[in-house]
Amino acid sequence: MNAVTATIVNPRDIKAYMHRLGLQARVAARALARAETTVKNQALIAMAAAIRRDCEVLLAANAKDIKAAQAAGKDAAFVDRLTLSAKSVETMAQGLEQVAQLPDPIGQITDVRERPSGIKVARMRVPLGVVGIIYESRPNVTADAAALCLKSGNACILRGGSESVHSNIAIAACVQAGLRAAGLPEAAVQVVETGDRAAVGELLAMNEFVDIIVPRGGKSLIERVMQESRIPMIKHLDGVCHVYIDDRADPEKAIRIADNAKTQRYGTCNTMETLLIARDIAPRVLPALAKIYADKGVEMRGDDAARALAPQMKSATEDDWYAEYLAPILAVRIVADVNEAMEHIAKYGSQHTDAIVTEDRARAERFIHEVDSSSVMINASTRFADGFEYGLGAEIGISTDKLHARGPVGLEGLTSQKYVVFGDGHVRQ
Amino acid sequence: MNAVTATIVNPRDIKAYMHRLGLQARVAARALARAETTVKNQALIAMAAAIRRDCEVLLAANAKDIKAAQAAGKDAAFVDRLTLSAKSVETMAQGLEQVAQLPDPIGQITDVRERPSGIKVARMRVPLGVVGIIYESRPNVTADAAALCLKSGNACILRGGSESVHSNIAIAACVQAGLRAAGLPEAAVQVVETGDRAAVGELLAMNEFVDIIVPRGGKSLIERVMQESRIPMIKHLDGVCHVYIDDRADPEKAIRIADNAKTQRYGTCNTMETLLIARDIAPRVLPALAKIYADKGVEMRGDDAARALAPQMKSATEDDWYAEYLAPILAVRIVADVNEAMEHIAKYGSQHTDAIVTEDRARAERFIHEVDSSSVMINASTRFADGFEYGLGAEIGISTDKLHARGPVGLEGLTSQKYVVFGDGHVRQ
Repeated sequence: MNAVTATIVNPRDIKAYMHRLGLQARVAARALARAETTVKNQALIAMAAAIRRDCEVLLAANAKDIKAAQAAGKDAAFVDRLTLSAKSVETMAQGLEQVAQLPDPIGQITDVRERPSGIKVARMRVPLGVVGIIYESRPNVTADAAALCLKSGNACILRGGSESVHSNIAIAACVQAGLRAAGLPEAAVQVVETGDRAAVGELLAMNEFVDIIVPRGGKSLIERVMQESRIPMIKHLDGVCHVYIDDRADPEKAIRIADNAKTQRYGTCNTMETLLIARDIAPRVLPALAKIYADKGVEMRGDDAARALAPQMKSATEDDWYAEYLAPILAVRIVADVNEAMEHIAKYGSQHTDAIVTEDRARAERFIHEVDSSSVMINASTRFADGFEYGLGAEIGISTDKLHARGPVGLEGLTSQKYVVFGDGHVRQ
Repeated sequence: MNAVTATIVNPRDIKAYMHRLGLQARVAARALARAETTVKNQALIAMAAAIRRDCEVLLAANAKDIKAAQAAGKDAAFVDRLTLSAKSVETMAQGLEQVAQLPDPIGQITDVRERPSGIKVARMRVPLGVVGIIYESRPNVTADAAALCLKSGNACILRGGSESVHSNIAIAACVQAGLRAAGLPEAAVQVVETGDRAAVGELLAMNEFVDIIVPRGGKSLIERVMQESRIPMIKHLDGVCHVYIDDRADPEKAIRIADNAKTQRYGTCNTMETLLIARDIAPRVLPALAKIYADKGVEMRGDDAARALAPQMKSATEDDWYAEYLAPILAVRIVADVNEAMEHIAKYGSQHTDAIVTEDRARAERFIHEVDSSSVMINASTRFADGFEYGLGAEIGISTDKLHARGPVGLEGLTSQKYVVFGDGHVRQ
């Protein structure tokens, strides 16, 4: 395989090409499921070494993608996400080594119980099989996703953005060098080597070869995947996250959290999009917050009660309560109490991450029990909703679904548990 | 509601009728998610009392269904599954009381860890929301499923077979009397009160109201649900279960297990359908087993090597290896060793339940690690694959999928886990 040239696949052959990747992945998955922890770690460490060694090759491949993106008139933010540097290549290598350090979930036995019949029943953690990952411009996802799938004993088919195809193929060459070094099948990690969008459609239709799809990208990608595929998914569609400042909040903590949740990064799914403030505390926190937001260039859109306390605010419309801005814009609403805050979250929220700031233990308890989101927080910034911050070691994505995995998804979310039964000639009466 | 008459819903109104049930279920689900354990248990115990008290009413309603089924020419097995008796009504009441005794999974906090940032992260078990259950003729499922959904904090919509609609409505009246007695919303458990098959289609399409579908019934029902619905499911399509008798098996244990796995019950999904025997032990176990099977009226279909040892056997075709007979028929194949047995299971099995009989620890370990089925057993009968036998207390179904729940599914499979984060003004750096 040429590490820096995208394969030209005849559009008529895409179905056959993807079918071959699927079949190869299914075969590789059986070998990976059996692979020893030390072998998987050896592969990860060899991948990191290959990435460091081939840094120049990676940057040259990446330069092709950047040139094409610029020629196609992509904006600066897009090109920025696409761009690799010596530093980001080193970060990629370190990421692989970190996954090697994580405990291997596969084969873990839990919930052992002896039953009255005499059998011993337990659960054993096992891989899912084949993971399909569809992502957009960041090429580092190729290494990160490959590492998480490998460590969790899954084969994977990686379909990056067509704009980063040269970078992805170059990274995949390093990944496969690592697999070879450890004696694992190269088909354990396969990159779709064509930018043709029809390949995504084929991937989404291969129920027989793909056990789970992880779409990582904007809303339009995820909506497409939901429309087209019957394969189960790990996904989140929206991140309309709330911070509710209760009237029993410590104002200083409230201001710190509301500031951080909005302004630490604007474009992430766990950024606060709507701030809810209890009426009785609003005069003590909103003017100070409004000044902080104004100084940082955050546009505020509030209801009438909020605007009475911070006149520079624009007027919010019904659409603002549903909005995931992913930008320096914030919706602000004054509510009567925790009940009204929870009603607002139930109606407008996206079940991603919601926080309460309060010193009242009973209200905090009610909030974490009753708010039905993948992460619910007391006195902490929504920005903590992240696999690294939660100690998962790494993250394949965040799920706002309730089935299988919910919240940040690490290695465990890429596994399942089967029952194992130990008898000594036992039969059922 | 009249407890013994099916509601006549105008076919044109079925969409609106099902939509109303869905909306009511969604509202009830929020109340149920908050319900205290004692309140849920009180409801279960009151349901059991109502069922005992209304035994005569239930039997009268059931008599209507039986009469209609007989008039429609349904066979004896069908009528048998449909029929309630004073004894089966008592069993239903006891089942409700047993679910009241089970530990409540909701609100359980696990995996608590303090992170370097200072936040404390944990997982809290929460209900899924609304469960849709589609089942066939056994009316006791109405009480069993209602109990499991209620205890796990979920609202449910129950759609039983049209042939048992009077029985189901009568049972539902007892269930709702129990909900009322505990002050829980009656919409927590709703029975679809029409036999019109269009109601199933509507249920399967209500993504916005139904979080998970549990189809309980034959293959045609499950295939229909898979075709029509994008709602996640707990299901198993096939139960092609294997017992492999290794050449290092104890022949006495092997014969006992192979007998029990096939003949203890013929029509269940965890019944063995194919027996694999290592060549070197076949002469010591197959003739004895063939005699047992012949005495019990089990028809054997074998490959040539098996037929050489048990000449009364018919010749197996390729289709036999894929067959789920659910009947006194058994496929028998002689294999070289555990590797060939595992290859056979990987090719023809349905990932339900497979067992090895061996005294060789290393082979047993390989088998349980490498066979990718929801239950894998050493020296035990496949008939143990069951929620009660595994100590789950009860069972909503068995899943052969890998996502979310795998194997027998009890209360835990009807729940999810969200992340809860405890801070004290913590923000992300």
